[in-house]
Amino acid sequence: LKLANMSIRGFTFGALAAGIKHPGSERPDLGLIVSEKPAIAAGVTTTNLVCAAPVLITRKRLETGLCRAVIINSGNANAYTGSVGYQDALEITGAVAGLIGDREDLVLPMSTGVIGTHMPMDRIKEKLPSLVAQLDAGSFMDVAESMLTTDTKAKTVFLEGTVSSGTFKIMGMAKGAGMIAPAMATMLAVIITDMEVDQPFLQRCLSSSVGKSFNIISIDGDTSTNDTALLLSGGHPDAIRLGRSASDRATFEDLLSKACMSLARQIVSDGEGTTKVIEIRVQGAQNDHSAEMIARTIAESLLVKTAFHGEDPNWGRIICAAGRSGCIFDPSRVDLFIGSVQVVSNGEPAPASWENAAHEVMKSREFSVLLDLHSGDSQGVIFTTDLSEEYVTINADYRS
Amino acid sequence: LKLANMSIRGFTFGALAAGIKHPGSERPDLGLIVSEKPAIAAGVTTTNLVCAAPVLITRKRLETGLCRAVIINSGNANAYTGSVGYQDALEITGAVAGLIGDREDLVLPMSTGVIGTHMPMDRIKEKLPSLVAQLDAGSFMDVAESMLTTDTKAKTVFLEGTVSSGTFKIMGMAKGAGMIAPAMATMLAVIITDMEVDQPFLQRCLSSSVGKSFNIISIDGDTSTNDTALLLSGGHPDAIRLGRSASDRATFEDLLSKACMSLARQIVSDGEGTTKVIEIRVQGAQNDHSAEMIARTIAESLLVKTAFHGEDPNWGRIICAAGRSGCIFDPSRVDLFIGSVQVVSNGEPAPASWENAAHEVMKSREFSVLLDLHSGDSQGVIFTTDLSEEYVTINADYRS
Repeated sequence: LKLANMSIRGFTFGALAAGIKHPGSERPDLGLIVSEKPAIAAGVTTTNLVCAAPVLITRKRLETGLCRAVIINSGNANAYTGSVGYQDALEITGAVAGLIGDREDLVLPMSTGVIGTHMPMDRIKEKLPSLVAQLDAGSFMDVAESMLTTDTKAKTVFLEGTVSSGTFKIMGMAKGAGMIAPAMATMLAVIITDMEVDQPFLQRCLSSSVGKSFNIISIDGDTSTNDTALLLSGGHPDAIRLGRSASDRATFEDLLSKACMSLARQIVSDGEGTTKVIEIRVQGAQNDHSAEMIARTIAESLLVKTAFHGEDPNWGRIICAAGRSGCIFDPSRVDLFIGSVQVVSNGEPAPASWENAAHEVMKSREFSVLLDLHSGDSQGVIFTTDLSEEYVTINADYRS
Repeated sequence: LKLANMSIRGFTFGALAAGIKHPGSERPDLGLIVSEKPAIAAGVTTTNLVCAAPVLITRKRLETGLCRAVIINSGNANAYTGSVGYQDALEITGAVAGLIGDREDLVLPMSTGVIGTHMPMDRIKEKLPSLVAQLDAGSFMDVAESMLTTDTKAKTVFLEGTVSSGTFKIMGMAKGAGMIAPAMATMLAVIITDMEVDQPFLQRCLSSSVGKSFNIISIDGDTSTNDTALLLSGGHPDAIRLGRSASDRATFEDLLSKACMSLARQIVSDGEGTTKVIEIRVQGAQNDHSAEMIARTIAESLLVKTAFHGEDPNWGRIICAAGRSGCIFDPSRVDLFIGSVQVVSNGEPAPASWENAAHEVMKSREFSVLLDLHSGDSQGVIFTTDLSEEYVTINADYRS
C-alpha cells in the first residue's frame, strides 16, 4: 500500500498523544475521524453484560443511523467506571461536537485499555482543540496507530470495488491482541466506505460480515467489555450511491466481508505472545451450533494451544477437547487431519508414520486442523493462536 | 503421618516400574490394590464424551457394586485407542484376576497418561506376576506414587473416625496436575475405608463428596478422558459395619467429604506450574447454576489467571469475566473483595487506597476472591490456580 492511496473521499483523520495511560507519554493515544457530512452508520457491540460507558453511548446513538465523528482513545477502557465514567464519555463527545459544530449525538466514542480507572479528563479535554485543528485526509494510519494497546502493529485494510454507479473504496482499521474471543463483535474496528449505502442494508452487511470474521477468532476466550465495530458510509456531499441491483449489493457485501476478514486475520496474527495462527475446522457435525462449539472448545483448550506452541502433534488433546464440548458425536467415526496429514482415521490412530509429517506441518506459522465427525452435514471454523510463555509474561505484568 | 500408620485392614498394595512410557525407565508406573474379600465399591467417572477404555470397563463393572482389585497405570491413558485398547484393558484385568484367583469382573482398571497410544502389553504382562507377589499391607504410598504423571508429589489422605459400631479409617490417594476442570469426576482417585458400608449409601456419599470437592477445582479447564474416583469399603472378612443410625452415617459422610476435599486441595495445589491457589466465591446470585458458572468463568479466564500470577489486583478482568459468563446480574450493585480488601463497592471502584492492600493479599500462596452480586441468595465456589510461564513450558514440551 502506498501512503498516497490511504485517503477516502469525505473523511479526515487526526491523532495525538494525550498521556491517557501515563502522563507525559509521547505515545499517540487519542484519535479522531470526522466526515464532511453525517455518514450513514452501522455498528455491532460487545455481548458482555458488563459494557463500557462508550459502548452504552455508541449503542444508543447508533439508533439515529448517522455519525459525523468517532473519537477513539487507548490506555483507558472507561469500563466499570460507574456514573462518573458515563458523564466523562458524554463530556468528551460534547466537546468534540462543539469543536466541529455539529450535534452531540452524531459523535460516537470508543475506548480501549485498562478497566475500572476513571478517564484523565483534564489531559483529554486540553488536547481536543489541537486534535480537531490537525484533521486531514491523509492521517488514517495515525488513527489506526493511536488505538493500539498491547498490539505490536496497526491493523488496516484498503480495498477498491466497482459497481454500476462507479468505483468505491472500503478502508478499515482495528485493534486487539488480548481479550479476544468469538461470540461478540470484535475489539475496536472502524470501517469506512465512500459509497453511500442505505442504513438497513449497511447494518445487515456489517452484522453478517462480523459473524464470519471477527466472531470466528479467539486468542484467549475473554470477550471484552468494549468490543465495537463501526461501519461509516458516504460522508461526502457528492458521494456515489449504491443502487438496488442485486449484483451491485453482492459486490459491496463481498468487499466488506473481505475487509472484515483481513482485519480479523491481522488481529489473530498479532495476538499477545502468538507465534502461530491455526484454522480449526469442524465438519460433519449434527448442526451449526455443535460444529461451532466443538471448534471453539478445541481453539480455547490450554492443552491444545500449548501443544500448538510446542509443535507437538499431540492429537489426543484435540479429541479430548471435542469430547468435553458438551456436543454429541460418535467418537468411533472421527477423522482428524493436521494440515494434509491424517492422524486419526475412522476413530483409530493412524499408523505411526504420520508423526514426523504432522510435526513438519506444525513448524509453519499458519496451518489448519480438520476434524470430520461424520455425524451430520454442518461445519464451523475458528481461527486461533498458540499459547506461549510470552502471553503469560505480557498478562502477568502488573497492570498490562 | 507416620509410615507405620499407612495401612488399612483388609487391603494390600504393590507397585513397580514396567517402563510403560519409556522402556527401561525405573519410574514406578504400575500399581495394584487388592482386598482380602470383595470390597463394596462406588465410583464416578468422567463426563467427557470420549472415554478411555478403562473408564468404559470400570463403569460397566461397577454395576456389580463389588471390587476385589484395582490395577492402575500411569504413562499411557489407553484413551482413544479403539477396539485394540479395549481388548488390552480386558486382557490386563483378566491376567490380574487369574493371578489373584477371582472373577475378572471384580478387577477394575485405571489408566492415566498420553492419549492415543496403544499400551505396551508385553512389558505390562511380564510384570504382573511380580506385582502380585509383592503385595503387602504397608505399600499404600508406593501405589500413590506409581499413579503420578506431571504431578510433583503424591496426594494422599489418612483419617480416622468413630461410630457406634467402632473406629474406622478412610485413606485415599489421587493424582492430577493438568487436564483438571470441574464438571467431571476428577483425575484418578482411590479412596478406601475399612468400614463396611451398604452400596447405595456408599455411592450417594461418594457422588455428594465429589460434587463438593473434585468438581469445584479447575487448573486448566480441560476435563480428562480418564477421570475416575473409586471408593472401596470393607474388604476384610471381619470388617465392622456401618449401622443405620443417622448420626453414624453423618459421621462417615463427613469424614469422607474431608478426605475428598483434602485430595482435591492437594491436586489444585500441585497444578502444573502453579504458584498460587485461589478460592473464587460468588454469592448473591440468582440461582446455583449462575453462581457456579460465574465462578468457573472467572476461574478459567486466562487474563484473570495471569493477573493472579503477577499478583496484580487488576479486578477489571474479574468483572469482565463475570460479565461474559452468560448469566444475568446487575453490574451496578456488585461488591468485590480480594482477601478482606474491598476493591469494588456497589458497582463503583473503591478509593485508590485499596490497591497496595490487595497487592499484599495476592503475595500469599493462598487467598480468596469474593464476588457478591446482590441479585439473589445462591452461592458457588471454585478453587483455581494462577497461570504461569511454567505451565506453558510443561505443556508445550513435545508429548508431555
